[in-house]
Amino acid sequence: METTINISENKETKKGKAPLLVSSPKAAVEPQPKRGFKKGLAIFDFLLRLCATGAALGAAATVGTAQQTLPFFTQFFQFQAQYNDLPTLVFFLIAMAVVSGYLILSMPFSIICIIRPYATTPRLILVVFDTAMAGLTIASGSAVAAIMYLAHNGNSNTNWLPICQQFGDFCQAVSGAVVGSFIAGTLLLFIIILSAFILRRSS
Amino acid sequence: METTINISENKETKKGKAPLLVSSPKAAVEPQPKRGFKKGLAIFDFLLRLCATGAALGAAATVGTAQQTLPFFTQFFQFQAQYNDLPTLVFFLIAMAVVSGYLILSMPFSIICIIRPYATTPRLILVVFDTAMAGLTIASGSAVAAIMYLAHNGNSNTNWLPICQQFGDFCQAVSGAVVGSFIAGTLLLFIIILSAFILRRSS
Repeated sequence: METTINISENKETKKGKAPLLVSSPKAAVEPQPKRGFKKGLAIFDFLLRLCATGAALGAAATVGTAQQTLPFFTQFFQFQAQYNDLPTLVFFLIAMAVVSGYLILSMPFSIICIIRPYATTPRLILVVFDTAMAGLTIASGSAVAAIMYLAHNGNSNTNWLPICQQFGDFCQAVSGAVVGSFIAGTLLLFIIILSAFILRRSS
Repeated sequence: METTINISENKETKKGKAPLLVSSPKAAVEPQPKRGFKKGLAIFDFLLRLCATGAALGAAATVGTAQQTLPFFTQFFQFQAQYNDLPTLVFFLIAMAVVSGYLILSMPFSIICIIRPYATTPRLILVVFDTAMAGLTIASGSAVAAIMYLAHNGNSNTNWLPICQQFGDFCQAVSGAVVGSFIAGTLLLFIIILSAFILRRSS
């Protein structure tokens, strides 16, 4: 008679343990394929970050080295153009240097997010700084774009003459840098949206 | 003897049901105070959105109506300044109108997110468009800031003379609008970071 009692108790214990296994470990709540998907998104984030670093560094280097000296000069003056002739270009150079530095420093955090796709704290830190840096990149790129438009076309209403007729090579180099900065800014915006998808609760 | 078997079975059934209750409904996984916290964040998001709308609309209206006619004129020409003298200001006006329109249209989604703080799809839609609009706001504001810096100070290297000595009131109005657009842009960046915190898995 006692043996039958033991058997019935064992059955109930097994029934009781099954849901316990479901509720406690994370791997069961968020299944394996989804974990792989999140890891893929994190790796994509790292690759985008690499591209953005390249674009920002390229933009900074292009503006920093862009220099043009005209072949003719007067007794007192030599016609020369470089980045520190325009305060906006100085701002652009500093902003691109800051963004490049941040992007390089952010890579260890991005790698942590690849190793642990469910860690939210490093991801949130990345989102906060990414947003600030995206703002800085777009602001500096856009300011230089406005000035370069003026340098190419001038403005008859305000009597600002185009300078790119004389300094064509300089203008081309800076315009290329503007494109680079906009690529970096767009990539950063994509990284922010990607982070939002990674942070999304898998419910 | 049979009664004692029944009692032991009931005990086991209760033990088995307890974890089942924990794992199935959402309210148990994410407790009530946290739900209130998320709701509070969603309401804060709505308020920030209202402020950003005000700032963007104000900036658009200020630039659109800024106009100054100088008190002297020649036989052929009257000195007048308004937004369509500078292409950057036209871009700024369009961008601010688009951002204001988007912010007003986004409010129903923001209200849905207040009512259902755990709905991720409307929140993700908001994040994607907020990011794009933050980029547009900062780009247009920054472009006008660069042009206005030039209008205030001029640039001796490129022979661009300051025009704000003549058109002081016009320059002041546009500079105010730039401040408004930067406020709107900063609020949008805050809204993106806030959305990331709301989307964060509560694990």
